Amino acid sequence: MGGLSVPTTAADNVDEHVLLARAYLSRVAEPASVPVWDFVRKAGPLEAAAAIRRGAAPPDVAAATDARRRVADPHADLEAAARHGVRLVVPEAPQWPHFALGALERTGAARAARYHKGERRAEESGEALPPLALWVRGRGDPASLAVRSAGIVGSRAATAYGSHVSGELAFGLATEGVVVVSGGAYGVDSAAHRGALAAGGVTVVVVAGGAERAYPAAHAALFEQVAEQGLVVSECPPGATPQRQRFLTRNRLIAAFSTGVVVVEAGRRSGAMNTARHCRNLARPLMAVPGPVDSAMSAGCHALLRRDDDPALLVTSSSDVLQVVGRVGEGLTGGDAAGNPAGDLRDRLEELDPAARRVFEGLPVRRFAVPDEIAARCGVRLGDVLRALPQLELADLVEADDAGYRVAARLRTKAK
Amino acid sequence: MGGLSVPTTAADNVDEHVLLARAYLSRVAEPASVPVWDFVRKAGPLEAAAAIRRGAAPPDVAAATDARRRVADPHADLEAAARHGVRLVVPEAPQWPHFALGALERTGAARAARYHKGERRAEESGEALPPLALWVRGRGDPASLAVRSAGIVGSRAATAYGSHVSGELAFGLATEGVVVVSGGAYGVDSAAHRGALAAGGVTVVVVAGGAERAYPAAHAALFEQVAEQGLVVSECPPGATPQRQRFLTRNRLIAAFSTGVVVVEAGRRSGAMNTARHCRNLARPLMAVPGPVDSAMSAGCHALLRRDDDPALLVTSSSDVLQVVGRVGEGLTGGDAAGNPAGDLRDRLEELDPAARRVFEGLPVRRFAVPDEIAARCGVRLGDVLRALPQLELADLVEADDAGYRVAARLRTKAK
Repeated sequence: MGGLSVPTTAADNVDEHVLLARAYLSRVAEPASVPVWDFVRKAGPLEAAAAIRRGAAPPDVAAATDARRRVADPHADLEAAARHGVRLVVPEAPQWPHFALGALERTGAARAARYHKGERRAEESGEALPPLALWVRGRGDPASLAVRSAGIVGSRAATAYGSHVSGELAFGLATEGVVVVSGGAYGVDSAAHRGALAAGGVTVVVVAGGAERAYPAAHAALFEQVAEQGLVVSECPPGATPQRQRFLTRNRLIAAFSTGVVVVEAGRRSGAMNTARHCRNLARPLMAVPGPVDSAMSAGCHALLRRDDDPALLVTSSSDVLQVVGRVGEGLTGGDAAGNPAGDLRDRLEELDPAARRVFEGLPVRRFAVPDEIAARCGVRLGDVLRALPQLELADLVEADDAGYRVAARLRTKAK
Repeated sequence: MGGLSVPTTAADNVDEHVLLARAYLSRVAEPASVPVWDFVRKAGPLEAAAAIRRGAAPPDVAAATDARRRVADPHADLEAAARHGVRLVVPEAPQWPHFALGALERTGAARAARYHKGERRAEESGEALPPLALWVRGRGDPASLAVRSAGIVGSRAATAYGSHVSGELAFGLATEGVVVVSGGAYGVDSAAHRGALAAGGVTVVVVAGGAERAYPAAHAALFEQVAEQGLVVSECPPGATPQRQRFLTRNRLIAAFSTGVVVVEAGRRSGAMNTARHCRNLARPLMAVPGPVDSAMSAGCHALLRRDDDPALLVTSSSDVLQVVGRVGEGLTGGDAAGNPAGDLRDRLEELDPAARRVFEGLPVRRFAVPDEIAARCGVRLGDVLRALPQLELADLVEADDAGYRVAARLRTKAK
């Protein structure tokens, strides 16, 4: 792969051979290919890329990469990326959103195991696999994805109601420091980004083509603004065109990058329903905004809210969403306008040791979270989390369930 | 109480002394008085009425009846009722809606027990007590109340959306033979009655004043039409004026007369929220129609849908409601347009004995029902129901839960 200097803007401290190998892999394979992802996972990116290039990869990997293996030029791709302000983030880099993509690592491993057991559908719409690499543009920090973020998704053909609600939700969440994640389409997606930008917030566009291009082209200025305040993210290299299959695999990244996903308006067959499915598969909390029952654009939302099994949570405002994706103090009873908890709660928090207090502050208000996730959210080691939780339960600050832990019910705002 | 002939239009086969005693009791006491109801329950209507009239009732009963005990004239009331086409239905008559009021008998008995234990709040908003008698007008059959009926309630200040949805729901349900139950107010109530009437269906207005008067007066023609096809029902005698407290106690009857209640549009403090509470207290299924999240008139509905504890079921159409209040075949997967079940199900039903088949046909599709209710719904003796249910479970036609029995999940229509 050569020892050329790598024209990336990121101070990654990543071996440049690894960077070139990942750039090459993201060019030769379509997103979410089980054989390629599994081969890279097992052989490592350097060996995998070299084997593919010289035609020595296993047959299923070769089949998925033969079309481009000879023409792919990772050096040119990285140069083109740099010209457009796009940098490559790889799993070996500190900026890699491990927390966001952990769920995909797990589902991907399960998927690969089934694949090797003989269920040989190598390509399947919406594979639950992590990306091989991410091409990103903008000032945002990829590592913070999904730590405190809300996916806001819905129909391209949103009604005035849907666009209005998307913008309001995004504005309210961005005001509270929540990162907004969406696609780049007309309708709900762009209204959400505009709302977040208007609040001076961080917003993330996950695109199906190259990160340097705007699709639709009418959103070029919007994407520029997003890059100023947040991130444009793609798993495809520069120049890649947005294709139907890439939109479907892209949807899994929107779900993965979101602490929880809100479907604002969606017809029954909207792409947002596919994102909702990814959200459930990744065990991310799914929310839906209701609307008029005679609006076809709300029919998908109502279907999600009516599911017998694992229905979406109905949300009507950014504070409802904040109860799900936010930290403690957000959506709690009492407290002052600045979000400081009420006196009684403050007193009890002060009696806790610092680790327990950080754990409490990392707990979701409404849904339950497992200790793993709590550890990642609050930046406390798992062992310390496991020691803190019983302490918090004893202090009546936390409640437990089969699904994990959350802030005790009586501390939460009453359902309005 | 005299041996005068009783001018009632009902062929009740009820002792006329009992009829006069109940008419007297419904005049002297306000609806839902714990001491009066409990005194009547224990002493019987004849003895209770006589004791009240001659000032020999226990002090708490006397306190609740002294204002009118000397002036009440049940004979005049029954004559006035007859002039307006109003008849008196009493618990001793076969037309008494025992099935609808069974839940109130149980909650009333519990309430009376608490009352005698010293919690002496004799008057309490929204007492869960059965009426002492019902004054009814119209061609409908009171005995059929709550067997297969839907309460459709909501704000007087409904938006165009709320009125439209109420009318559509009522029309769709009436078309399927479901009785519609509501109050007589502007907004959701009247739109529901109009929808049911337009479908040629049976609709029931439960009023807070006398059954002979229209309140609001602008609904006089609507009430006449209701009487033609259904019933106007009151627990107050002719001439009684609709008062705030009577609206609140009236709401418990709307809930009791409904197999399930749908809140279409309601502000957070709407009277419909009080009806919703009665619905939950009576363990009737509660449904709510969503609407725009920026509409104050949908805020109450969304609050009911977002409750942590026992949330309302989101419904978007009359077929969603039918799954809750209807019988088997309504809302099932497959089958033909006439509602006949699909072939596989038909075959298995034909293998059942006739009682088991009737039990199956009396089962609710979506919510769970206890054997008592199933017996009443399908007209099969409780013992036969208890024998049939295990048979139906074995045949995978029925599923059981702590809350009772319902049609097996895989036979139900998927949540759309």
